Amino acid sequence: MADTNDIDQLNSQIMELGEKYWQQMQGEMPSLFDRQYWQAQILDWLMNDESFKVDAFRFVDVLPALQSSTAIASHVRDYLLASDRKLPVLIRSALTMAAGGISSPVATRAIRANVSSMARRFICENDSTRAVKVLRELAAENLTFTADILGEATTSDAESDRYLQKYLDLIRALSQAAETWPTIPILHHAASGPLPKVNISVKISALDPWLDPADHQGSVARLKARLMPLLRQARKHQVFINFDLEQWACHDITYDLFEQVALHPDLIDWPHLGLVIQSYLKKSDDDCRRLLKLSKRRGTPFTVRLVKGAYWDYEVVHARQNGFNCPVFTNKGRTDACYEQLTDILLVNHELITPAFASHNLRSLAHALVTAKNKGLPKDSLEVQMLYGMAEPQRRILARDGYRVRIYAPIGELLPGMAYLVRRLLENTSNSGFLRQSYHEGVAISTMLTPPLAGPELADKRRNRPGAQDCPFTNVSLLDFNEQSVRSSFATALETVKATFPLQVPVVIGGKAISSGKKTQRFSPNDPALLVAQTNMATTAMAQEALDIAEKSFPAWRDQPLEKRAAFLEALADILENDRLQLAALQAYEVGKPWREADGDVAEAIDFCRYYARQARQELGPTRQGDMAGEENLLHYEGRGPTVVIAPWNFPLAILCGMTSAALVTGNTVLIKPATASAAIAHDFYRRLMQAGFPPEVVQFLPGAGKEIGSYLVEHRQISQIAFTGSKEVGLAIIEKAGRTVPGQREIKRVVCEMGGKNAVIVDDDADLDAALKGVMQSTFGYAGQKCSACSRLILVGDIHKKFVPRLLAACESLPMAAATDPGCRLGPVIDQTAHERLGQLITDPPAGAKLLFLGNTPTPGFFIPPAIFEVKEAGHPMLQQEFFGPILTLIRAKNFQAALDIANEGEFALTGAVFSRSPRNMDTARNQFKVGNLYINRGCTGALVGRQPFGGFGMSGIGTKAGGPGYLLNFAHPRCITENTMRSGFTPDLQM
Amino acid sequence: MADTNDIDQLNSQIMELGEKYWQQMQGEMPSLFDRQYWQAQILDWLMNDESFKVDAFRFVDVLPALQSSTAIASHVRDYLLASDRKLPVLIRSALTMAAGGISSPVATRAIRANVSSMARRFICENDSTRAVKVLRELAAENLTFTADILGEATTSDAESDRYLQKYLDLIRALSQAAETWPTIPILHHAASGPLPKVNISVKISALDPWLDPADHQGSVARLKARLMPLLRQARKHQVFINFDLEQWACHDITYDLFEQVALHPDLIDWPHLGLVIQSYLKKSDDDCRRLLKLSKRRGTPFTVRLVKGAYWDYEVVHARQNGFNCPVFTNKGRTDACYEQLTDILLVNHELITPAFASHNLRSLAHALVTAKNKGLPKDSLEVQMLYGMAEPQRRILARDGYRVRIYAPIGELLPGMAYLVRRLLENTSNSGFLRQSYHEGVAISTMLTPPLAGPELADKRRNRPGAQDCPFTNVSLLDFNEQSVRSSFATALETVKATFPLQVPVVIGGKAISSGKKTQRFSPNDPALLVAQTNMATTAMAQEALDIAEKSFPAWRDQPLEKRAAFLEALADILENDRLQLAALQAYEVGKPWREADGDVAEAIDFCRYYARQARQELGPTRQGDMAGEENLLHYEGRGPTVVIAPWNFPLAILCGMTSAALVTGNTVLIKPATASAAIAHDFYRRLMQAGFPPEVVQFLPGAGKEIGSYLVEHRQISQIAFTGSKEVGLAIIEKAGRTVPGQREIKRVVCEMGGKNAVIVDDDADLDAALKGVMQSTFGYAGQKCSACSRLILVGDIHKKFVPRLLAACESLPMAAATDPGCRLGPVIDQTAHERLGQLITDPPAGAKLLFLGNTPTPGFFIPPAIFEVKEAGHPMLQQEFFGPILTLIRAKNFQAALDIANEGEFALTGAVFSRSPRNMDTARNQFKVGNLYINRGCTGALVGRQPFGGFGMSGIGTKAGGPGYLLNFAHPRCITENTMRSGFTPDLQM
Repeated sequence: MADTNDIDQLNSQIMELGEKYWQQMQGEMPSLFDRQYWQAQILDWLMNDESFKVDAFRFVDVLPALQSSTAIASHVRDYLLASDRKLPVLIRSALTMAAGGISSPVATRAIRANVSSMARRFICENDSTRAVKVLRELAAENLTFTADILGEATTSDAESDRYLQKYLDLIRALSQAAETWPTIPILHHAASGPLPKVNISVKISALDPWLDPADHQGSVARLKARLMPLLRQARKHQVFINFDLEQWACHDITYDLFEQVALHPDLIDWPHLGLVIQSYLKKSDDDCRRLLKLSKRRGTPFTVRLVKGAYWDYEVVHARQNGFNCPVFTNKGRTDACYEQLTDILLVNHELITPAFASHNLRSLAHALVTAKNKGLPKDSLEVQMLYGMAEPQRRILARDGYRVRIYAPIGELLPGMAYLVRRLLENTSNSGFLRQSYHEGVAISTMLTPPLAGPELADKRRNRPGAQDCPFTNVSLLDFNEQSVRSSFATALETVKATFPLQVPVVIGGKAISSGKKTQRFSPNDPALLVAQTNMATTAMAQEALDIAEKSFPAWRDQPLEKRAAFLEALADILENDRLQLAALQAYEVGKPWREADGDVAEAIDFCRYYARQARQELGPTRQGDMAGEENLLHYEGRGPTVVIAPWNFPLAILCGMTSAALVTGNTVLIKPATASAAIAHDFYRRLMQAGFPPEVVQFLPGAGKEIGSYLVEHRQISQIAFTGSKEVGLAIIEKAGRTVPGQREIKRVVCEMGGKNAVIVDDDADLDAALKGVMQSTFGYAGQKCSACSRLILVGDIHKKFVPRLLAACESLPMAAATDPGCRLGPVIDQTAHERLGQLITDPPAGAKLLFLGNTPTPGFFIPPAIFEVKEAGHPMLQQEFFGPILTLIRAKNFQAALDIANEGEFALTGAVFSRSPRNMDTARNQFKVGNLYINRGCTGALVGRQPFGGFGMSGIGTKAGGPGYLLNFAHPRCITENTMRSGFTPDLQM
Repeated sequence: MADTNDIDQLNSQIMELGEKYWQQMQGEMPSLFDRQYWQAQILDWLMNDESFKVDAFRFVDVLPALQSSTAIASHVRDYLLASDRKLPVLIRSALTMAAGGISSPVATRAIRANVSSMARRFICENDSTRAVKVLRELAAENLTFTADILGEATTSDAESDRYLQKYLDLIRALSQAAETWPTIPILHHAASGPLPKVNISVKISALDPWLDPADHQGSVARLKARLMPLLRQARKHQVFINFDLEQWACHDITYDLFEQVALHPDLIDWPHLGLVIQSYLKKSDDDCRRLLKLSKRRGTPFTVRLVKGAYWDYEVVHARQNGFNCPVFTNKGRTDACYEQLTDILLVNHELITPAFASHNLRSLAHALVTAKNKGLPKDSLEVQMLYGMAEPQRRILARDGYRVRIYAPIGELLPGMAYLVRRLLENTSNSGFLRQSYHEGVAISTMLTPPLAGPELADKRRNRPGAQDCPFTNVSLLDFNEQSVRSSFATALETVKATFPLQVPVVIGGKAISSGKKTQRFSPNDPALLVAQTNMATTAMAQEALDIAEKSFPAWRDQPLEKRAAFLEALADILENDRLQLAALQAYEVGKPWREADGDVAEAIDFCRYYARQARQELGPTRQGDMAGEENLLHYEGRGPTVVIAPWNFPLAILCGMTSAALVTGNTVLIKPATASAAIAHDFYRRLMQAGFPPEVVQFLPGAGKEIGSYLVEHRQISQIAFTGSKEVGLAIIEKAGRTVPGQREIKRVVCEMGGKNAVIVDDDADLDAALKGVMQSTFGYAGQKCSACSRLILVGDIHKKFVPRLLAACESLPMAAATDPGCRLGPVIDQTAHERLGQLITDPPAGAKLLFLGNTPTPGFFIPPAIFEVKEAGHPMLQQEFFGPILTLIRAKNFQAALDIANEGEFALTGAVFSRSPRNMDTARNQFKVGNLYINRGCTGALVGRQPFGGFGMSGIGTKAGGPGYLLNFAHPRCITENTMRSGFTPDLQM
């Protein structure tokens, strides 16, 4: 594009301009770095001590939620005064004063005031009079603004409506005030013409509580419905509206929304709209091209704010946690380089798009200004944007130099504003940030002004290649519904699968499919008229035949090389991954599992295969015991015998696959007794086992009645172990039967048994309520509460119920219920008519003392149970004891955190639990005292992932095994220790001195 | 002693003499290094390839036992032709020819001939005419001899008698022949006077099959009884007798024996006796002083052969395996330096002791000769000894130089001679040996002649210091009965303990000792008249009281820091170690356990404590799962609840301690239900638990009837788990009861259950029969067969029974039976009258088809059952199925190894087993197919050590737990996974790119 000379010349121009500005900025320290403020001291320290920074930010995050001096003092103590923390004397004594003694209330007030004043540097107060005043005052410095309303995450339609209303109010208030404002050319006139005096940035995600890329169309439609009135209002009052761009998950929705809006007849000729390009996105180039095309098509220019992007941590973590392709550059230099490329393109096309360069990086800005100048563009053909409260010297110099500088000014309360504050503090203290480097680290300005180096991206780690043992286990990626192709493939898979109904499910013995006289029919819970499958039910004679084959084929299978069995499992994983869409689609029909949940189930099955193959190599193979010369002791594990796998319908593929693959890879032969409700999925799994190469004689497929076939197998002398997941009643009966050793039995029967749960979520009085609400909703209503891990008890500490319950009920009110095949479904049907009747009965006629706080409406057809919220007063209430397995939540208040824990620990189950708290002390107490198999802190209690959250409980929830965790395979295996005396005739090969 | 100048002068003299000899030796390669022999090629290769050396030596070791060409060919294939072995083309093609094809018989004959001829370089043939001829011929080279009879390990009195007879025959044959030999001054005259022409070296250990340092007096007495007739005969025929010195375990016995003999009136004035000093012994200095004193006291000189020592590998391994102080220098230079110091002392005292310097090391020899010369001693005041077949050039040069050179000439058959051959080959190929360095490595002679460097000994690794996790686990040392002080302390402990009888054993609940109305009396099985203890039997009311305390104290104990519980366990280990003698002594009385077995039991208890403390730190503490930014997943384990420990009497301390300490360290409270027969030992253990600091409320001590107290506890809702070791019947009943979940039960009961065994030892047709016999005797008769691991089936492959059975019966014939308190006891009484009657009945009236091959006599008083050997013909015979728990062995022949394995795998138990074989293929087959929890190759099937042979079986032997192994603790614990979402407000502390 440009030759080397041009580039060199450009860089020296940038250097010249940058150094000029830098000189002018000297003596104008940005206020946060101003030594007047004692916070500057802390900020200094933050940059020196990473662990202090973490705790300080966490403290800042929780502070607005703290209601009393005592609470503030204890959080200061827990976060900032840990005994092993090295703090400067000044800071420690200030904090110690705050945290203790008589002066506590005074000192904590001081702390709150200090943090508030720090926050106020970045956030305008939420009082329209004062906000208007603050925004107005910017003009005195020759600065203009765009105003944004800080919003807490909206979790219900009511909240989104309220947020919309705030914007409407702001438009009214500001446009009214602006009527009296003088027109200042540098601020209110661009090359393209006059500019509105009022400019507002809208946070799109807050306008819909159920925004979801999987439900792209629905999300865009709902947003558009809320946004159009606002835009019409803006146009009417001559207000500029900018669509802010947030996380990657909102990206496509926001762009599509903007496109629909910009082309809407009411707005197609209105230039005062804007959107954002984030240069940290790997696809920002596409974004730019798309917007240029849109502008041409539209015929009216609009504004684009070019930013680097503010959610880098989140995007990287989120992508990693889900196994998505990382949407952002992981190399900082690439983001900066991309920024400059996009700057070029935008300036070339300044007639289609009015560019706004938002950055505090002097190099990026100087590059834009020099480039514009070289292209002969006037200064008012672009604008510079900076954040309120940051980089004050720069903004002054640029304004003085004749540029239009717009300040992004958030308006709001401290509580929802803290996330914003933390992002700003992060930016100020980030190692690679311009502000830190220039002011704190004292990096030379000439270095800061050199062109960005686009270094290499982090390599994509392919950890799960077959046999890989030298790196941590990585879960298979979930489907990334951000991708249009993924959404449409899923929809197609639903159609394809439906066309095959009704499926025929045979009994399969020794690889031979058998029809039996007795058949059952399976209808879809989404629509009881849809026949999904017809299943042949095995007889005991068939079970006996299967047992004989399983016993006969066992020794050879046990003695296969471990590597061979592990390789079969990895082949199975690949097949499941390849067929993941069809496998998930069938779940949506047969068991009513919504898109994401169905995909999660398939992904878990794939993970189980790869994890167990890997663990088999690590755990089963021989390990040397002791290190004694003259002897070699090798401990290894091998299969125990025919194993019956009795699987549930709620994770129809994952749990079946987990138990079966564990039993097989350790060298056992398996008899699968699937749940009748999910027999078609189980048969799909069985067929893939065969495809993967498992010999037909090592797996038998026996759909049938639990009471008949299940019992026959469990009690049989030829069975060596039982893997069961299901109800407590059945589980305990199996354990009792397995305990009886019958004549001719080879092995004492082992039982791997996962049973129910009555899982509690505790919301502490300092919890992040956005996170808590999201966690409770997901844990309670995910797959209609039909998970053993589901939340069914909610324990609210102290006064938090006052804030939390209304939001919870509002969220339930707007929870989208739909058939599981619908991507917008957030609450699908329950499994069958029996469950539907049982749960309906419970809601209609709950035990005495249970107060129904909320009950939703029910769509038809399908076995839908609406969300139901009960409240009880007594800790021992039956609603807190019995497992319901449906979308029913019972809440109870606890006077303090310890009382909450005591309630949580009551009852016979001990499976999962969650705590939302920001008190380090309470989190520690929960770690020690909340006695469940899987405890989650600051997230919901469902969704354990293979290899990351080994899953399983104790009490009456299970025997204490951990599916998807280390040691799980050993439940299916026998240890053998083989000792060789290696000394012969006094000669020892391994003797080393 | 000597100043630097003297030393320098000495060294230059040594250098001069050494180099002179070296020059003379050039061209006189010792025959093994002579290129004429194709073995030289292999020897060369041995030195280049350590793994080939191992296999080649193993092949040489087994070769004489191979009866057919097929057997030889298959061993060549398995040992020498492994496909991944890199061999020189020449050797590979020779071996391939030998191993395969039609020419096989010819080639294998060639191999046998070659190895035989190699052996014949070191061993004179076992034909008295030919042996005499060979020895006679040495005189032609001016060499004389000492003749030794190679003996297989003697395992019965009959064998020792036969060995003695061989010596008597040799004395007669040689002395008769010598009558015609001319007297050669250089050979037959020393400074002290004329020397016998016949000189014989006696291998002392072969003269008694039960030689044991623990039974020092008995061993010396028995040896003396056999040796005195031989010595009288020797004196009569003018034959010199040298006492050879073998392993360290024979050292004190040999020295005491020599002293008694040398001072015996019949021999006190006879100078032609000799003994050995091994300079590799750290105590060789003491040996030297002691012999000088003896000579003074005696008034007649004798000869001392100064050697380096030939059992270095064995001594090091044996000491390490038992945790003894290593008796030999581990630094080779120290051995050489010590040799020179002792040389000095011996030469100074040449009038008391006639020195013989046995070495092939030119430096050591030159040092001796120069030192003697400097002291003005004539050449015939000393002699040089070398081994037959080695270092021929040296011996010629020295003889030529006028020294008396005596050749140590072993006479014998190839079979027993192979161990000797391997030792010689080792010596020739050892990295640090003079022969290899000088001939193969070409190290400069000047280097070889420099003074030995006494480098540092290997540091004693104190691995079991409390909390040590950074090194492998090390078992506590066994008592080293080589030490006189240990023997006498043990005897004292027996007396001390006996003085406290009868012991009073209370019930102890919450730390309070309680008497109950019901008492039982325990008499010693050694002597039914000796009342050892009176035990209070707990009532169910007491058990309930104990349960209430155990349940109440559980949560606090579970939530103690792991480190605290581990520290208690380590304190307990220290207390047990401190009191080990008393604890072992009580076992000798209460349960009739012999010295070494009782010590082993206490040592195992100590090991359990330390191992479990260590494993608790490694296995229970939190481990991070996954490595995902934004979340922290920690998996840890914690206690499950009150645990009843039902312990057996046969390992009255070890198993009780193992189960109890595992349950406690994982955070469970424990109710101990000891075996009634060993209640006093159990109470001793309980008291030490309290001393170690375990709170009284976490351990309850409940002696009582199994049917009453045991059942009450097992079925109780307050019990969370049961640890049981005992019979199959009781074990299965416990498992069945535990399977029934009773109302109010908190946890599903887990059962850790070790039951019986019917363990088989297979002796292959190429087995090392010395090792096999030792292994079978120990495994069968150790603690009178009252171990679940004991051998009770012996399976003999092919024709091996012809050689093996007569030796086995002879060994049984002479097996010493005695009270367990007697150090000479090899077979003690069984546990009580009931067992005595049951076993007696079995022997009197065995199932049809069982042929009694041997039955010993029975001493009185005490519940003694003599060794009994049965033979059966059918694999399914009841004698091969039922567990007897006594000193009864049933043998059966198998036509081949596979048939033997099939027999071994029959039956319901799968605990231990052993294979004696030298066929790599059969050993591999056994590894794969011999399905037992603990398989031993080339050693007996008892004596599993904590941390080295994790112990436990499957089938009806147990559930597949491994006491003393990794993962055992997890049987007593629940996993909990605690997941924290570490991302707050989009900020993640642990995100690193």
